[in-house]
Amino acid sequence: MKRRDILGKGALGMGAVAVGASAGSMAVAQERVRWRMATPWPAGPLLIQAPRIMADRIRELTDGNFDIQVYQGGELVPALETLDAVQQGIAECGHGWGPYWIGKNPAFALDGGIPMGMNSRQHYAWFFNAGGKELLHELYERFNVIGWPAGNCDYQMGGFFREEINSLDDIQGLRIRIGGLGGEILSRMGASTQVIAGAEIFSALERGVVDAAEWVGPYDDEQLGLHEVAPYYYYPSWWEPGTPLSVYVNLDHWQALPDQYRSAFETAAREVNLLHMAMYDYENTKALERLREQGVELREFPTDVLEEAERIAEELFEEYAADYEDWNRIWSHYRDYQQRFRESFRTMAHSYSSFNYRDS
Amino acid sequence: MKRRDILGKGALGMGAVAVGASAGSMAVAQERVRWRMATPWPAGPLLIQAPRIMADRIRELTDGNFDIQVYQGGELVPALETLDAVQQGIAECGHGWGPYWIGKNPAFALDGGIPMGMNSRQHYAWFFNAGGKELLHELYERFNVIGWPAGNCDYQMGGFFREEINSLDDIQGLRIRIGGLGGEILSRMGASTQVIAGAEIFSALERGVVDAAEWVGPYDDEQLGLHEVAPYYYYPSWWEPGTPLSVYVNLDHWQALPDQYRSAFETAAREVNLLHMAMYDYENTKALERLREQGVELREFPTDVLEEAERIAEELFEEYAADYEDWNRIWSHYRDYQQRFRESFRTMAHSYSSFNYRDS
Repeated sequence: MKRRDILGKGALGMGAVAVGASAGSMAVAQERVRWRMATPWPAGPLLIQAPRIMADRIRELTDGNFDIQVYQGGELVPALETLDAVQQGIAECGHGWGPYWIGKNPAFALDGGIPMGMNSRQHYAWFFNAGGKELLHELYERFNVIGWPAGNCDYQMGGFFREEINSLDDIQGLRIRIGGLGGEILSRMGASTQVIAGAEIFSALERGVVDAAEWVGPYDDEQLGLHEVAPYYYYPSWWEPGTPLSVYVNLDHWQALPDQYRSAFETAAREVNLLHMAMYDYENTKALERLREQGVELREFPTDVLEEAERIAEELFEEYAADYEDWNRIWSHYRDYQQRFRESFRTMAHSYSSFNYRDS
Repeated sequence: MKRRDILGKGALGMGAVAVGASAGSMAVAQERVRWRMATPWPAGPLLIQAPRIMADRIRELTDGNFDIQVYQGGELVPALETLDAVQQGIAECGHGWGPYWIGKNPAFALDGGIPMGMNSRQHYAWFFNAGGKELLHELYERFNVIGWPAGNCDYQMGGFFREEINSLDDIQGLRIRIGGLGGEILSRMGASTQVIAGAEIFSALERGVVDAAEWVGPYDDEQLGLHEVAPYYYYPSWWEPGTPLSVYVNLDHWQALPDQYRSAFETAAREVNLLHMAMYDYENTKALERLREQGVELREFPTDVLEEAERIAEELFEEYAADYEDWNRIWSHYRDYQQRFRESFRTMAHSYSSFNYRDS
């Protein structure tokens, strides 16, 4: 920690109190910093594990002196106002998912993954190495925040359906619980989409208010009990093929943070991508086994559904590109790299998986 | 850092010098610790980036006080004696790849990935969540080290071949540069395998001493220039479908390390898995593009070659299981989880990739 950072810190009241004094060249004051992290996450699913792992790690790395309290959705601010809270400094930092903020600017979606988009590994290569970080940071800065990927529920599932989907025709008039860009695309495909809060999805599906409902993946879906009221579990989740979550920090608070604490924060954010993905891969594997044991029937979306979804996704993204300069700039870059990763991953990764996962 | 860690540190001479004194409750001494990290890696390829990123991060997280110098292969000890050096305390820590140490105990291979084994994501879920860490740590402890995954070259390529491989028959008598378990399997398939040091592979392939040579993946292979002397570039690398690298620490030095520095070390090790994988995914993508532009012809191994390789890998692993108790215990656990991950990844990940990567 540099001494000037400690001295410069007085200007920033909220949540940060400088204490102690340096004592000789080898002893440095460990400044106490207390932050609040707003999140949109409920207590149950694995989602909230990502910010919790981060906060634990940051305490560990700073001998307990940089202490971040993680709030569930609604505890500090309403769930979907997380980014606003960080922007305004109501919370020093927040955790969430880019597509939640597309009302502010559609380009935020590109930080959390888009329908028919990159998988998680491709997203990280794009963000950390190809220039995605610089493009997104320029966008964030205009909202007075800085941010990074921080956790991942990765490959999701396509949701529980009361009836089978045998072709594109079956999407017509289908009443399905889904939000975001996936919902927009399904609407254009003829479905009747609606957003229902997590706690109410079960009863909506049970009572037949909707014919289908998507939520996250096996572990989180199992907790909602959707398999008890709809037998068909569809895949792949073409609308969320990689789901990087993000952490955001108010820029004023970030700039006032000592270098060593910035390093602890950024490192913990990068680390949790690995740990959260491993946690999901492990827990989803076991949850899918349990669901199958309980008679859940796995079904793959028909090819004509996937093809039409891809066509309409491209159409939607082109419309955004015409209407929004930020989307156009960042998506063009993202799309170029997705195409390039497609070639190398098909060769190196997919060829092995195709053999290794073949029916045996 | 806890005061008792500082006080307890005097017992450990090598590479660690305690300095400074605590000054009041909020100021703690930042102990200077200097370690050496032996590695088997040459300067050129991306492999050595993993320990370098780790060492940089550990310095950052400790305000420069925990300083690890990374040595290339041969600088401190011969490349393949890295683990011995750590075990004996010649270096406090070392970086490497599990299969390099199968002469000590074949079970070390399971920490770096095995032919027809898990991909990297599955490996991390196995290590961090399914119990792989506990199994491997028990093994490491008997060699006086502790260790973790720390970097990853992931999906490799199957190497450059002077002639096409059209069926299993073409493996008979094939002279190929390959080591490790993949080499053992190819030998049993009728190939004539040999290990040639990185710097000499080019001339061996150019002069026709070997008909084919495998090294790492597109980025690293390109640096050797193999594409200039053999036109066919084969995939997938069924012998290295995920290649987790590892970092090892001498147990005495680990136990003497302050808690905060232990956290910095472990966190940096976990983080570099993500960053190194992203770096490889990005650099390999670009290198594969360059190689194709230069006329390299991509070829997929025929199915009968893959099937025979899988059959012989299983045979080899069963032999190890009969001969080595450690292998049997750890591999049984690994194999069980590989089978379970196969089901969930086929459903959630592979179904999307199959659509997304289809020929278009």
